[in-house]
Amino acid sequence: MTESICIVGTGRVGTAIGARLRERGVEVRDGGAELVLLCVPDGAIAGVARSIEPGPWVAHVSGATSLSALDPHRRRFSLHPLQTFTRARGAEQLDGAYGAVTAETEEARAVAVELAETLGLRPFDLRDDQRVLYHAGAAIASNFLVTLRRVAGRLVEDAGAPPEALEPLMRRTIENGFELTGPIARGDWATVDAHVHAIRARRPEYERLYRALAEATS
Amino acid sequence: MTESICIVGTGRVGTAIGARLRERGVEVRDGGAELVLLCVPDGAIAGVARSIEPGPWVAHVSGATSLSALDPHRRRFSLHPLQTFTRARGAEQLDGAYGAVTAETEEARAVAVELAETLGLRPFDLRDDQRVLYHAGAAIASNFLVTLRRVAGRLVEDAGAPPEALEPLMRRTIENGFELTGPIARGDWATVDAHVHAIRARRPEYERLYRALAEATS
Repeated sequence: MTESICIVGTGRVGTAIGARLRERGVEVRDGGAELVLLCVPDGAIAGVARSIEPGPWVAHVSGATSLSALDPHRRRFSLHPLQTFTRARGAEQLDGAYGAVTAETEEARAVAVELAETLGLRPFDLRDDQRVLYHAGAAIASNFLVTLRRVAGRLVEDAGAPPEALEPLMRRTIENGFELTGPIARGDWATVDAHVHAIRARRPEYERLYRALAEATS
Repeated sequence: MTESICIVGTGRVGTAIGARLRERGVEVRDGGAELVLLCVPDGAIAGVARSIEPGPWVAHVSGATSLSALDPHRRRFSLHPLQTFTRARGAEQLDGAYGAVTAETEEARAVAVELAETLGLRPFDLRDDQRVLYHAGAAIASNFLVTLRRVAGRLVEDAGAPPEALEPLMRRTIENGFELTGPIARGDWATVDAHVHAIRARRPEYERLYRALAEATS
């Protein structure tokens, strides 16, 4: 059991992880810890890692970054919480999220899995050379969900309707297990064509996006 | 108050509406009703409407279809529940959803708003000539959310990770008010480029979609 952890970085993820570790009785300290957990931007990981004297476990929480960014450390792993974090919430945002574990040894994997469980994450294994593809999927699921809401909201608002009306629809789409309904599910291509024409007339910048999404749906 | 309604169509929407009306004590009958509510596919509305002897209110629940599809009836309106429906749920799926009301007279609007409230919908006004644009927004929000989940799920699965891990992430993205996080929010274009390369190598059919979504996000 890892009893002391040094968290580097006070962003959204580092703050939530620090709060959770304190809740669970893990000592969060500045130096001399058994594990140094880098919660810094992806581009800063390699530089911070190199500045750490070898000895403790060193890990990062990035989705797309290879373990090699933790060179020269050999006692290392990555644990990526598959979640979006906000400063408006606390440690509880970790609850029930999955956590991607990348490790090169069984010992490292055991430390990572134990940390995931302490944090309230559901750990799964991820190969180092698959991290970017995995993270692309995560970004599509979360970041582009924001994009869909913005694009849909603009069209609905252009039509004079309240964009917040989309939220019960989007929540239920998830609750219904992402069951496809609507014109494409019905094979109603006349309605799909009508959408394209309406978008072209009012928001031509979204026509290509609509077409790409429709193509990926059918 | 509309006391008797004839529902034409026993699809997902017609079934949920019928169940809700019965719950609320409205008489659902086959003929001689005060209101005939067409819950049939968009392409069938005009034909069914023409087959109805003028006299009762006639309405449809389509998102994209103009009121003119209800010709020759003049006592007419549309009420579109902005929700995705499944046969696995009942009348309660109407609760809290919004409902788009299109009406040409104050009298028609009052009948539509009252029906929306009976059904548990939150009514808002929608101009007839804006219905297609509105419906394009609704389809993007719901149908393309399914697409995002599928595309993201395939990439995550290709990477050897469990696609169901995306669900807590997507739910929280909505719960956090669609706050954008991730590489684009951080201006981390190196990660965005890495995503594009990983997608091109494994799922080239998604590269265009990823690029269109990234462009609409930034």
